[in-house]
Amino acid sequence: MNPFIEKCIAAYEKNKSFVCVGLDPELEKLPPHLPKTMDGLTTFCQAIIEATHDSCIAYKPNISFFEAYGLEGLAALKNIMAAIPSHIPIILDAKRGDIGNTSKKQAAFIFDYFNADATTLHPYMGYDSVQPFLEYKDKFNFILCLTSNPSAQDFEKTGELGTDPLYLGVAKTTQNWHQSHQNCGLVVGATHASELTQIRQTVPDLLFLIPGVGAQGGDYHTTAKTSLNSDSLTLINMSRSILYHDSSPNFAASANQYIQTVLGQ
Amino acid sequence: MNPFIEKCIAAYEKNKSFVCVGLDPELEKLPPHLPKTMDGLTTFCQAIIEATHDSCIAYKPNISFFEAYGLEGLAALKNIMAAIPSHIPIILDAKRGDIGNTSKKQAAFIFDYFNADATTLHPYMGYDSVQPFLEYKDKFNFILCLTSNPSAQDFEKTGELGTDPLYLGVAKTTQNWHQSHQNCGLVVGATHASELTQIRQTVPDLLFLIPGVGAQGGDYHTTAKTSLNSDSLTLINMSRSILYHDSSPNFAASANQYIQTVLGQ
Repeated sequence: MNPFIEKCIAAYEKNKSFVCVGLDPELEKLPPHLPKTMDGLTTFCQAIIEATHDSCIAYKPNISFFEAYGLEGLAALKNIMAAIPSHIPIILDAKRGDIGNTSKKQAAFIFDYFNADATTLHPYMGYDSVQPFLEYKDKFNFILCLTSNPSAQDFEKTGELGTDPLYLGVAKTTQNWHQSHQNCGLVVGATHASELTQIRQTVPDLLFLIPGVGAQGGDYHTTAKTSLNSDSLTLINMSRSILYHDSSPNFAASANQYIQTVLGQ
Repeated sequence: MNPFIEKCIAAYEKNKSFVCVGLDPELEKLPPHLPKTMDGLTTFCQAIIEATHDSCIAYKPNISFFEAYGLEGLAALKNIMAAIPSHIPIILDAKRGDIGNTSKKQAAFIFDYFNADATTLHPYMGYDSVQPFLEYKDKFNFILCLTSNPSAQDFEKTGELGTDPLYLGVAKTTQNWHQSHQNCGLVVGATHASELTQIRQTVPDLLFLIPGVGAQGGDYHTTAKTSLNSDSLTLINMSRSILYHDSSPNFAASANQYIQTVLGQ
C-alpha cells in the first residue's frame, strides 16, 4: 500500500477524524499578542500543530501563503513542517504542473526539498505534466478535479471530455493514472454536493481531498458521509475556520476545541 | 498601453528579435569549467544575459528550475533577475492558479517579491483563480492555452467547451479577460502548427508566448510569421538550444551567435 495512504489510515485510527488542518497563515490575521513577523507566524502555526495533532488526519500547508513572504516565508514553512509529528501526513498544497523536464524540478522541490508526503496538481497539461510526480512511488498526488471556487463553472463544469463534463473526465483519467501508479487522488470541493456524490460513485477507489468545508460553507459530517472511498477514507480540509476561530492568547486550544465540536456535532 | 507590451515593443524595435531567452539552468548541464554550485549557476546565467541582451525581446526564467535547489536556488534567481537590463521585460514562468485568496498570495510572490513583468497561469480553475493576477494593471499574464508537450492531447485538444476544442475555448475566454483587463495573452506551443494558425485567426489581438522552438523541434521564422498579433508582436521562447549550444568557456558568446544565426536564417 502507498505509504501516504498507510499514514492516513493510521492517523484516522488514532484520532478518529477526517479533518485535514489547512495551514494558510497570514500576518494580518495573527492573534494580536503575536508579533507580525516570520517568528510570530511560525509560533502561531507550531502552537496550532501542538494543540491539534490528536484531532486531525493530516496537515495541508499551502506553499503560496509562505512564498508570499519571500525566502523568509519559505524558511518558516520548512520549520513549521518540521514541527508536525512524523506520524501525521503532510500534503504540501502547491498546485504544480508543467512540461515533463520542468515538472521533474517541481517534484524535487516538493518531495525532496520539503519532504512532503503529498501534493496537489493541475491536470490541464495532461499526463506527461504530472508523470514526474507519479514516479515518486512513496508519495501521493491530488489532481484538481472540481474545485470549490465559483469559477469552477468556467471550464471544469462547462467543459466536456467525450460525453462527460470535464471534471468527470479528469476523474476517470486520474483513475487510470492511479491504476498504474497507485498514488493519485482528487481535489473535489464540498461546495458541489451533487457532483461530489456523482464523482464518488464514478471512481469509488480514489481518495478525495475536499476543500470548501468551514469558511466556504460546506458541512463536515454530510461531506464525510458522501466522500468516503473504498478504504473508508476521506480528507476534509478546513483552514480559516480553525486557524482564526479565536484571536486570544488561547487561540490554539480554541482551534482544537473547535475541531472537537465539529467532530462531535 | 500595458507597460509590459510597451517594453516588448521597445525591445523589439531595438533588437529586431522575437526570441525570448528561457533561463532554465541545471547544475549538471553547466559548462565543465564552472563550479556546480549556486555561484556557478548564477555566473552562467549572468554571462548568458550579458551576451544576449541585444539579441532578444525578453527573458523567461522558469522558477521551477531554481526552486529545485531550495531557498539558495530562489536567492540565485533574484540575483539573476537583477542582472537583466531594465529595458528588457522579464516573464517569470511560474504556472500558478488557485482559489482567489491563494492566488493573491501567488501574485504577491511573482509580481511584488520578484518584481517580474509577466507570468504564466493555469486556466483550469477559471476566472476567479486568475483575477488577483489580472488586478496588477501594470503586469501581464500568459494563460496556458495549447502547450507544447505531447499530453496536450489529453484535455487541451480532446476536451471541448461548447462547440470548440478546449484550447480554443480557453483562447476565447482569455480574450474576454483581456478586453476587461488589458493584460492577458496565451501560451501556444509551436509544436501544433495548424492549431497555432487557427488560434491566431480566432483571437488576433492576443500576444502569444510560444514554447516548442529549438530543442522541441519548431522553426523560428515559420512560427514568427504565423504568430504575430495585431501589434506585430510575438514571443518565441528558446531555452535549452541557446543555453547549452556550446559547453566551452566561450558558451555565452556562442549562445548569442546561435541566436544571431537563427535570426539571420
